[in-house]
Order: sequence, then C-alpha cells, then structure tokens
Amino acid sequence: MSATDLSAQLLALGIPLHADPAVTLTDWRKRYQGTARAVASPGSTDEVARLVSHCARERIPIVPQGGNTGLVGGGTPDDSGEAVLLSLARMNRIRAIDTENDTITVEAGCVLANVQQAAREAGRLFPLSLAAEGSCTIGGNLSTNAGGVQVLRYGNARDLCLGLEVVTAQGEVWDGLRGLRKDNTGYDLRDLFIGAEGTLGVITAATLKLFPLPAAQLTAFAAVPDVESAVALLNLAKRRLGSSLTAFELISEFCLTLVDQHFPQSRRPLASASPYYVLMESSDSESAEHAQALFEALLGEAIESGLVTDAAVAASIAQSKAFWALRENIPLAQAMEGKNIKHDIGVPISSIAEYVAQTNAALAAAVPGIRMVVFGHLGDGNLHYNVSPAVGADDDVFMANEPQVNQIVYEAVARHQGSISAEHGLGQLKRNENVHYKSAIELRLMRAIKQALDPLDLMNPGKVLPDSP
Amino acid sequence: MSATDLSAQLLALGIPLHADPAVTLTDWRKRYQGTARAVASPGSTDEVARLVSHCARERIPIVPQGGNTGLVGGGTPDDSGEAVLLSLARMNRIRAIDTENDTITVEAGCVLANVQQAAREAGRLFPLSLAAEGSCTIGGNLSTNAGGVQVLRYGNARDLCLGLEVVTAQGEVWDGLRGLRKDNTGYDLRDLFIGAEGTLGVITAATLKLFPLPAAQLTAFAAVPDVESAVALLNLAKRRLGSSLTAFELISEFCLTLVDQHFPQSRRPLASASPYYVLMESSDSESAEHAQALFEALLGEAIESGLVTDAAVAASIAQSKAFWALRENIPLAQAMEGKNIKHDIGVPISSIAEYVAQTNAALAAAVPGIRMVVFGHLGDGNLHYNVSPAVGADDDVFMANEPQVNQIVYEAVARHQGSISAEHGLGQLKRNENVHYKSAIELRLMRAIKQALDPLDLMNPGKVLPDSP
Repeated sequence: MSATDLSAQLLALGIPLHADPAVTLTDWRKRYQGTARAVASPGSTDEVARLVSHCARERIPIVPQGGNTGLVGGGTPDDSGEAVLLSLARMNRIRAIDTENDTITVEAGCVLANVQQAAREAGRLFPLSLAAEGSCTIGGNLSTNAGGVQVLRYGNARDLCLGLEVVTAQGEVWDGLRGLRKDNTGYDLRDLFIGAEGTLGVITAATLKLFPLPAAQLTAFAAVPDVESAVALLNLAKRRLGSSLTAFELISEFCLTLVDQHFPQSRRPLASASPYYVLMESSDSESAEHAQALFEALLGEAIESGLVTDAAVAASIAQSKAFWALRENIPLAQAMEGKNIKHDIGVPISSIAEYVAQTNAALAAAVPGIRMVVFGHLGDGNLHYNVSPAVGADDDVFMANEPQVNQIVYEAVARHQGSISAEHGLGQLKRNENVHYKSAIELRLMRAIKQALDPLDLMNPGKVLPDSP
Repeated sequence: MSATDLSAQLLALGIPLHADPAVTLTDWRKRYQGTARAVASPGSTDEVARLVSHCARERIPIVPQGGNTGLVGGGTPDDSGEAVLLSLARMNRIRAIDTENDTITVEAGCVLANVQQAAREAGRLFPLSLAAEGSCTIGGNLSTNAGGVQVLRYGNARDLCLGLEVVTAQGEVWDGLRGLRKDNTGYDLRDLFIGAEGTLGVITAATLKLFPLPAAQLTAFAAVPDVESAVALLNLAKRRLGSSLTAFELISEFCLTLVDQHFPQSRRPLASASPYYVLMESSDSESAEHAQALFEALLGEAIESGLVTDAAVAASIAQSKAFWALRENIPLAQAMEGKNIKHDIGVPISSIAEYVAQTNAALAAAVPGIRMVVFGHLGDGNLHYNVSPAVGADDDVFMANEPQVNQIVYEAVARHQGSISAEHGLGQLKRNENVHYKSAIELRLMRAIKQALDPLDLMNPGKVLPDSP
C-alpha cells in the first residue's frame, strides 16, 4: 500500500491528515529523520479509535506524537516509511475543570502552558513545569512521565494524573477518566500507560490534579563550596521549609561561565565565584513576608554552619526570573559553545556527591581536557550531567568519544543503583543501551506486558523495548 | 498430594512451616474460613522464590498473607484445600535506612508500626497510618495500596513506594529496590504489583519514602451544618494551610451518638450537637505556635462565613488523642451496636454532598428506619458509608437486605464516577460485584495482564479478577 493509498483511506474514514506533515518527521534535537506512510491529525477520540482499528486490521505500525519536543526520538518513526504518524495536536480541548474536586480533564494534545493557564484562571495551580512547556503536550508529558522543576514538591507527571482515556492497540476506547484520590478496584492500568511512550496504546485524554495557588513564590541563589554541602543544604531546607520547598537546582561554576559568555546581558546574583550554586524556590501558602522570613532563617543557619558561603534572595519577580534564566540558559549556552554529550541521570541523593566526584575523575582521565557541565534537579537526585569538549578540540573528534563517555557515565550510575534516564525516557535513543543496566527478568516482564497489550507490535515499534536478544 | 506430603516437601526444600497455621486461615472480619495444603513461613526472599518455583512446577496455588488484617478476604484461601498459604510474617527485617536519601528498605513482613518507629528513631516520618498499624504489614499495605488518615498530604501506599523486590509467578526474583525519585527506563512494573493483592507475584521487600518529622502536629474539631459546608471548609483549609493539612475527616452526629453510648468515658469536644463534624490535623514544619495561629485564623474565617458553627483546637497531645479516639471508635461502636453493612466508597469531592443526600434518601425509602453511619476521609473523597439496622430491628433480617443495600450504594457511586472500593481492595468480597461497575474493556485489559504474568493462574486465584463470563 502506498502513502497515497493510506492517506486516501484515512480521509475516507473521516480522519483528517496533518496540514504540514514534514514538521512531524524530525525530532526536536534533529538526531532522527523518519518517514511515514501518512500523517494523521484526528480531532477526537473516536477518530483516533477509527484510525487505530484500521491500522490493526491492515497491520500498519502507529507512531503517536504530541508536541514533538521529546529528547530521545520517541515520537519519530523509523525511515522505512511503513508507519502512520498519529499527531494528537488537534485534540487540544480542555474538557472540564472541577475546582471543588481540584481536577482538570484535558485532551492529550493540550499544550502544557495552556493547561497551566486554564488552571490559573480557575484560581488553581497545575504544577508540572519544564522548559518545553510552551510546545509540549499533556499526552507526551504523560507518555514520557515528564519531570521538570517542581518534582520535589509535586512529583512527576505520573503523580499528577488521576485518570486516563486510552485507545488500545485494538482500537478500543478505555474510559478511565476518574477524578478519584483513592480507587482500589483493580490493576493500575493508568500507571502502565503512563511512561510507556505510546508503545502500549494511545493516551487521548487525562484527568489531572490541581492544587491551591501559592500565596507567594520566592527564589534564592546560594553559593556552596561543594556538592556535599548542597546535599546537606537540601536536607536542612526540607526540614525548615517542609513542603513549601518546591525546587532545588544545582549549578556548577562552569555552567555559569558558559552562560556569562553566551548570554552577556545576564548578571550573576553573587559577587564572587564558587565551585557550585543552588537555586531554590519556595511556594508559600501564607505570604511573601512569611516566605522571606523562612528563607532568611534557613540561609542564616546554613551560612553559620558553613554549608553556604554567600546567598541572595530575589527581591522582585523580575529578579526571580533572572535567577531562573541563569539555570534555563545553561543548555542553550552549552549548545552555542558547540557539540556536547547530554545525559539525564538519576542516583540516590545520598550518592550524588560521590557520583559526581568519581565520574568527573574518570572522564578527565579518559578524555583529557573534557569539560563537565554539571547541573540539574538535585532535589530529585536527577542531574543533567552533560560534557563538552576540551577548549579548542574538534567537535566531531570529540563526538566520536560518545560511546566511551556514555559507558563511563552509565557504569557509575549502575554502581549507585541509579537510572540512565531519570526524566527523558528511552525512546529510540536509549532502548538498547538499557539492556546493559536492566535485569534480564525486568526486560522479560516488560516484554510479557507488551505482548499482552500489543501482540502485533504495532504501537510505536522500535521504542522503549530493546531489540530482541 | 496430601497436606502432609507438601509440608514434608517444603521442609525438605528448607522452607519453614508456620508455627500456628490455624490463625492464618480465617480473615480479620471472620467472613471467610479457608483451608490450605500447607502454611509456609519463609524467612528470606530466597526461600520465597524456592517455594514459588516448587508450586509452579507442581501447579499448586499460592495465597500470600501479611498481617491478616485485610477487610475483603484477599489473604484467605478458599475451602478446597488446594492452596499453600504463604505467610510473609517472618520476613520482618529493616534492611536499610538512608536519611540523606530519605528512604527506608524493609521486608514485606515488617509491621507498619515498626516501620514508623524505625523512621522516627532516625529522625524521619513514614506517614502511612491506619487503624490496623500495630498488626498489618508493609507487604499487605502495598499489595492492597492501603490508604488511611494522611492520604490528603502524603498519598496512598502506592505514592510512598519507590522500589520493590518481587518474586514472580515463575519463582524468579525481580530486584527493583531502587531509591530513585525519577526513573523513566521502562514500564512501571512497581505500580502494577502494588494493589494487585498478590495475584501477579509476591512482594518481598520495598524501598519507601521518608519525610522530615513535623515540628508540631495539631488537631481541631469543628461543627459544620452540613456536608456542603464540610467540603467548602476543606477547600478553604487547603488554601490557608497548604500541605500542612494532613488529615480531614468527616463524622456525622449519629456516629458520635454511637460512640457516646458504647464508650461512655469519651467526652465530646463541643457543647452542642451538630449534623456533622470535621476532624482536622495540621503537621507544621515550624512550630506549635505557628500551627495554632494558622488553625485559629482558619477557624475564625470559617465561623465568620458560616461554614463552621463551633470549633475546638486540642490544647495538648492528650486532648488531640481524645479527638482522634472519637473518630477511631466509630467502627468499634457500630460493631457493639450489632451487625451492620460496611462500605468503602470513593467519589469526586465535588459530588460528596449530593452523594450522601441522595443515598441517604434512597436507603431510607428502601429500608425503613435504617441508620446511616457516615464518616471517613472526606479530604480524599472516601467515605465509610456504613449502615446499621433500625432501632429494635432483628440483625439477621436486616442483613438479608445486604444485596439490595449494596446495590443502592454502588449504583449511586457509579452515577458519580466513583469507586466501590476506595482503599480496601477487592479480594474475594467485591471481585464479582466489580463486574457491574467496571467496563468490559478494563476487565479485558486486567485479564490480559494476569495472563501475561501468571499464565497458570496460581497466584492468589479467586481474588481481584471476577469469575470468567
């Protein structure tokens, strides 16, 4: 069957095609270029179900895609041209908002920022927040169990979801859109579809948790002498601020140097340099004054005990945004610096200092002059442990080291019972790498579930699960 | 094979038998009396794996059991005498505690109160808390996804678990004991085994989340004119107290009357009677004074707006315990009053007032004089909507109404997209009832997963899944 055939068949089934299919076939990081037999853009759950039923009958693989902002190629088809790309982008309605139950029900294609906005207009907070929030969609956030900057307090995307609507691999609609905090009436299908990257079915809608809007948010920037002190500060902050502590990010001095260089308009909050910094945010249910008093007491105590050498609390929303911009501009600055090797590792928080010390040393020995761009969500044990080439080194020569660098980084992760993908998922980028760090029995359990729910292997094939042994 | 044969075989395999098998064969509520071919009491994961392997080879069904405090017969074998009962009670070691990572790793047979205690001794909080905590075990808590009184702030058992060790139906050990807040490297097997009531495998150990100990806990008791006001008070309290609000329980006047009658030493906190009351708890990260000030401001505001007619804040830990005893003695008082029909329903919080009004009216019309014992975890949308016979009615005549009463209660639940088992699970009590309130497709997905992980149907057969159609 040719592309034209399938497109014509879909139109005959009443399923619209995507207006600009080309934009859907390359991933965000431009690592993967796929082809597709057709790019469908259904506008309703019923249309998705019809599409999937048709594909199941005709044995056509399906690659679901949301905002196409994923970092592991999970939404890009292979280059065989066999698959249909299923864009959820047009399914972007907010179906319901229930402020008394603190829930919002949205379709998979809703852009995250629009969900945040709808919640805010109803006087509520939807706390999922990440760099791509202006483009990424809720369906993709759930399919990859997205993390972001407020996981410390509110959890991952998984923790923010109460119910799902899913089109199964057979093209049936499972209506699991329950807005319940407690429901023990069977297996946890919801959490199985969440994080499955579209390989078990297509998430078409979700009922999500809302929270009260905080009365005030406050940001602080603190210099710490080393990673150990940052971890100790985290534990002190959790004790003193309780669950008001909503973000706790680590930034190395080299990260700030890169930002200084490539964003010359940015200003450092502190006068002197320090090996590491911490960016903290508190979300206070009382008032800005209360948040301020708690932060000042915390930082005073931390300075006295030597955990913090200097600190600044943002005096305005503009200043708070400037603090956050330093953090958010790190990956951009690193990209401007040239090619680099990215990681998204997770380890127990108690292992982070040792992890960074050991891995820095091992990489420096293996690739002389290599520069570590260490930053990320310390509060969740998740670092974007990226590496850039030595000054003056050739980018392509450096990138040839990627397998060796990954091996050093991931074997250190494995030694600390960590994760090689804390928040980005596996997609096609890491699915085979995963074999070295997952037990055979866990992979067998995963394969058994895949076989049970998608026996024809039509749902996003070539993602998540490794090639058969 | 006779019971003696199997017991001898298990001993030959080095698997100890239970010293007092009789106590394991009747459920907590004494609704079910099972028999077993043998009652094994292994002391290690390796012994559990050997037992399960042997049973898989010999096609012997296995019923796992923790503290035997479940309320739906999930841990009781049927009366065929075919199954082996697998008691996890001897697997009760705390394996590790990591205060810097805020995690504790415990074996399945650890009694919940002992886990709480171990956490407290390390200066941390393990927040799962429920009436049976002195006897129930972590394995059972996870297998039933237990709820309790602090779900509003800390979530269900599911939300408190980061990693599991599981013996699969094939007798293999899956070591998923990861202490990571973020890990997106495959399907969420953890949440599949949690809440599966032992029908997919045997949980042998878990890595659980710990939290900072609050600086102060404070309890308040407030009279509210109706359920609507209780819900409005909940939303006000969430806004004013943020996540310091750790419990929010509803109690009807009739509940307190029963407690007055059967626990004559108990004292009501408020002078006059009210249709409903709310028991609230705050866990404050600052101080008792701070908690007190927030509670007083909240209650003042609520009294001014008419949501609350009278309120008392506990002035001491003893008084706080006395407030909680009123709540905890409700099921005991109801039992002393005679037989009764229990429910464990969940509905969206926005539907609770309507649910209670409609269901009260429907039951009163169907069974004249019936008395509703309405209480429970309003903050989670979960009520123990129990009913007692009319004054002077014959207990057994009343109990004959159980199917009709359940139907009225559960059909109202279904109309509000609720749950017929919010926190107790299905076990053998509700698995067939569930067919009327679950979609055929959801049941099919559940069966596909059961078939994938336990194709021989040896893991706790006759639980959770309904009889085949």
